[in-house]
Amino acid sequence: MSLTGELLIAGGTQRGTGASFQAFDAAGNTPIAQPVFHSASSADVDRACELADEAFDVYRALSLEKRAQFLDECAARIEALGDTLIERAMAESGLPRARLEGERARTANQLRMFAALVRSGDALDARIEPALPERQPPRTHLCFWRMGVGPVAVFGASNFPLAFSVAGGDTASALAAGCPVVVKAHPAHPGTSELVGRAIQQAVAAAGLPAGVFALLFDAGYDVGSALVQHPVIRAVGFTGSRAGGLALVKLAAARAEPIPVYAEMSSVNPNVLLPGALAARGEMLAREFAASATLGCGQFCTNPGLMLSLEGTAFDAFAAHAAHEFSAAPAGVMLTAGILRAYERGIERLTQHPQVTTLARGSAASDRAQPALLRVRACDLLNDPSLGEEVFGPSSMLVDCADVAELRTVLRKLEGQLTITLHMEPADAELARTLLPQIERKAGRVLANGFPTGVEVCDAIVHGGPFPATSDGRSTSVGTAAIERFLRPVCYQNLADELLPDALRDANPLGLQRRFARKLEPAK
Amino acid sequence: MSLTGELLIAGGTQRGTGASFQAFDAAGNTPIAQPVFHSASSADVDRACELADEAFDVYRALSLEKRAQFLDECAARIEALGDTLIERAMAESGLPRARLEGERARTANQLRMFAALVRSGDALDARIEPALPERQPPRTHLCFWRMGVGPVAVFGASNFPLAFSVAGGDTASALAAGCPVVVKAHPAHPGTSELVGRAIQQAVAAAGLPAGVFALLFDAGYDVGSALVQHPVIRAVGFTGSRAGGLALVKLAAARAEPIPVYAEMSSVNPNVLLPGALAARGEMLAREFAASATLGCGQFCTNPGLMLSLEGTAFDAFAAHAAHEFSAAPAGVMLTAGILRAYERGIERLTQHPQVTTLARGSAASDRAQPALLRVRACDLLNDPSLGEEVFGPSSMLVDCADVAELRTVLRKLEGQLTITLHMEPADAELARTLLPQIERKAGRVLANGFPTGVEVCDAIVHGGPFPATSDGRSTSVGTAAIERFLRPVCYQNLADELLPDALRDANPLGLQRRFARKLEPAK
Repeated sequence: MSLTGELLIAGGTQRGTGASFQAFDAAGNTPIAQPVFHSASSADVDRACELADEAFDVYRALSLEKRAQFLDECAARIEALGDTLIERAMAESGLPRARLEGERARTANQLRMFAALVRSGDALDARIEPALPERQPPRTHLCFWRMGVGPVAVFGASNFPLAFSVAGGDTASALAAGCPVVVKAHPAHPGTSELVGRAIQQAVAAAGLPAGVFALLFDAGYDVGSALVQHPVIRAVGFTGSRAGGLALVKLAAARAEPIPVYAEMSSVNPNVLLPGALAARGEMLAREFAASATLGCGQFCTNPGLMLSLEGTAFDAFAAHAAHEFSAAPAGVMLTAGILRAYERGIERLTQHPQVTTLARGSAASDRAQPALLRVRACDLLNDPSLGEEVFGPSSMLVDCADVAELRTVLRKLEGQLTITLHMEPADAELARTLLPQIERKAGRVLANGFPTGVEVCDAIVHGGPFPATSDGRSTSVGTAAIERFLRPVCYQNLADELLPDALRDANPLGLQRRFARKLEPAK
Repeated sequence: MSLTGELLIAGGTQRGTGASFQAFDAAGNTPIAQPVFHSASSADVDRACELADEAFDVYRALSLEKRAQFLDECAARIEALGDTLIERAMAESGLPRARLEGERARTANQLRMFAALVRSGDALDARIEPALPERQPPRTHLCFWRMGVGPVAVFGASNFPLAFSVAGGDTASALAAGCPVVVKAHPAHPGTSELVGRAIQQAVAAAGLPAGVFALLFDAGYDVGSALVQHPVIRAVGFTGSRAGGLALVKLAAARAEPIPVYAEMSSVNPNVLLPGALAARGEMLAREFAASATLGCGQFCTNPGLMLSLEGTAFDAFAAHAAHEFSAAPAGVMLTAGILRAYERGIERLTQHPQVTTLARGSAASDRAQPALLRVRACDLLNDPSLGEEVFGPSSMLVDCADVAELRTVLRKLEGQLTITLHMEPADAELARTLLPQIERKAGRVLANGFPTGVEVCDAIVHGGPFPATSDGRSTSVGTAAIERFLRPVCYQNLADELLPDALRDANPLGLQRRFARKLEPAK
């Protein structure tokens, strides 16, 4: 498949009439000659959105099995892109082959997980309250399910060019919910986006779906994204990226004549807490694991451990020394884009020049590469200047010395919302952990013990979300089956004739779904 | 229990230091002398909110059984207020005894329904993904539940002084979710609010809960509500009222340093569609039932049928004549407040003076009472001036003549989001209904056939919600068990020791809950 840099709209390609731009080779920071990509114009955005709106009723009326088959087909066609996809993604993102192969597997698995969820019908949350004609007053038949909200705009993320981009978690969960999707490609990996977008477009055609179910738009700047979020037919937005970017979309969405929800996964420093028993028992090992987690993938994970809290003392000093050694030895790495590298350098520069911050390690130097950085600050100084605890996206972390448990509690209480908070503990730390947990639960979507947060398991029980500003909507997750809820809304039917009800709610339960009937959950047949 | 007009904070009463105001007798529009009510100051708001925040961790850690008992106790203590409550509510709201007795029963039943939901543990949505140590890479144990978001601000609604006020649906669902509640009393029924508030306060004390679990604040104006929505500890807002009021709260919440969700149930004209078969078969009966529904309780229901769509023709003319007769004969009624009456009169005035609107009936005249009004407009004129279709809160409705089915579809497509849309149909109308349903489902939270929307059944399958501007968040309902979801957020625990997990997630399932284990739903024990 040769790339053309065109928009994917209406089941075909068309050259965007907006500004043109080129992809960049991340490692070399040099333009990739072919193809030239063309940004969408506002007319292109209109067309994609209107087709998505037209496709909605047909797509959502598809049988669960056909919707699931379509998601499976998307997975298969992404896999079938083979090395072409991996090599293009390596060039555009600077991420290594093994990482991208793993990410491709995750992307396909996510689509298949949502296919299985669609087949089960569980996300429909079907409920039936039979008529009670004898009751005074009589009750008519009521039933309930959750249907898709309508067309969804998805913004590709720079740091997961496959798993959180064109056919990533947001797209998969929206399609599973029965919502057409219009994707705004991330300009850092437009070729990767086009490859995946074409695979989805082919799956749409193979399934005989209306072409408006999927569209892919390019943009060198911000106009397309703004127009998408403001377009009247768009009913929800999925975004993973910077806090500034996410908040800009939230603001646009709230200012619409009809405001819509924005699910923006934005920023988190993922605090880790070293409890005294763990620090004493395995400080050196933890320091190594911590450095490995913080510098993994050049630190470009939403779940990067950016803050390490401990009680001050010789044990933490030893931990700091070991960690500093590891950070110093960690190689400088290629970042996703030159802009992300510059932002990282500015962020580290600001911290290292702060009078209350000690620089423990600055990694090994290399031009055009991000040097891992380990910094240290006293909790009281962090409390005085909370900006020291803000995310610096990249391979850095900040050690925080707490004078005592009370100060540790204060730091936890003052934290902003987080994707994750981790406790490192031994059995002897259990009582202290128990007293910290209520505060921690209030601040994070995922609470870990004795591990590092950089791995995110895709399953029913995961939460990749958390209170603001980790996300713009802390009642949701962007990873795992529960992500589908973001794109569903409940609808009740009262006294509607059985033949007019969706199959999922018909009397005879023709789909054999698990349903709540007269308050009691009845298993799937 | 004698009323004092004081704020209910910290388990006791204290005189608000803000402006004082009096309750009004709705029927006579005369002040009720005793007591004088005192608005909260910003310091009072702070105190109530800070106590709510302090109470949160204790309250949410309560066993499910104790939380359920507390809700049952709230119900019992409201019932125990007896005629004192009914008589005060009659005076303040102008609503008749039977209606308020029914509403009291609904209020108690709602609390008991949420108690049962809490006991079942179903709303926790417990999920367990066991460790997979053999897998490569190995997976650690993950589990998931939904916990309360934190302190919730509830705004009492004027039109349901019991069922959507101090201990109404918003409060009951928030308390069931484990969230402390700070209520801003509606100034139209402050005495009713104080009576119910004291009952809840006693239930809090009887259950040995931290006093901050519940507070009741008075306000003559808007300052207390604004301060509440902006208070940093408040995590969500429940509101039922006007569109202007709801949007003002949404705006305040979005402008916070940490934005929070506002669940505002605001405005709906609840379109009814008379399909040809139904109109031919039982037009006269439908006209009577329609008039009864539109003038019930002086039209002061969120679900009042404000728009009646039909194909034009002699059958609809006959329907209009019958309905006009009924509206003309319907008595003028007492409205909840003088302000609501004035707004109704202004709204009707605007419509009756519009050149394209025909006034079919203006009810029987009486000073200081709302006269039912029936109006009529052609669909093309409504499409030209959508403001003709906006809600006029009170006993009025608008008939809409559609030239053909295509125009009917256009009107449905252009509708704003609604709480309900109703089809009146005979079997012969089924095919037409089938083609209209996709559009209707997209616009309403509840779709009815052959009934009127003014009754709202409180159950698992109800949706009292709908796309904007029916509500500010169309992914939710404010009535029924699903209302609890508004005040929950998911939290995941990864690799946490069993003894540190909430009981709901412990390995042995000590609460015997229904849980999802390794993807499969296991029934409650």
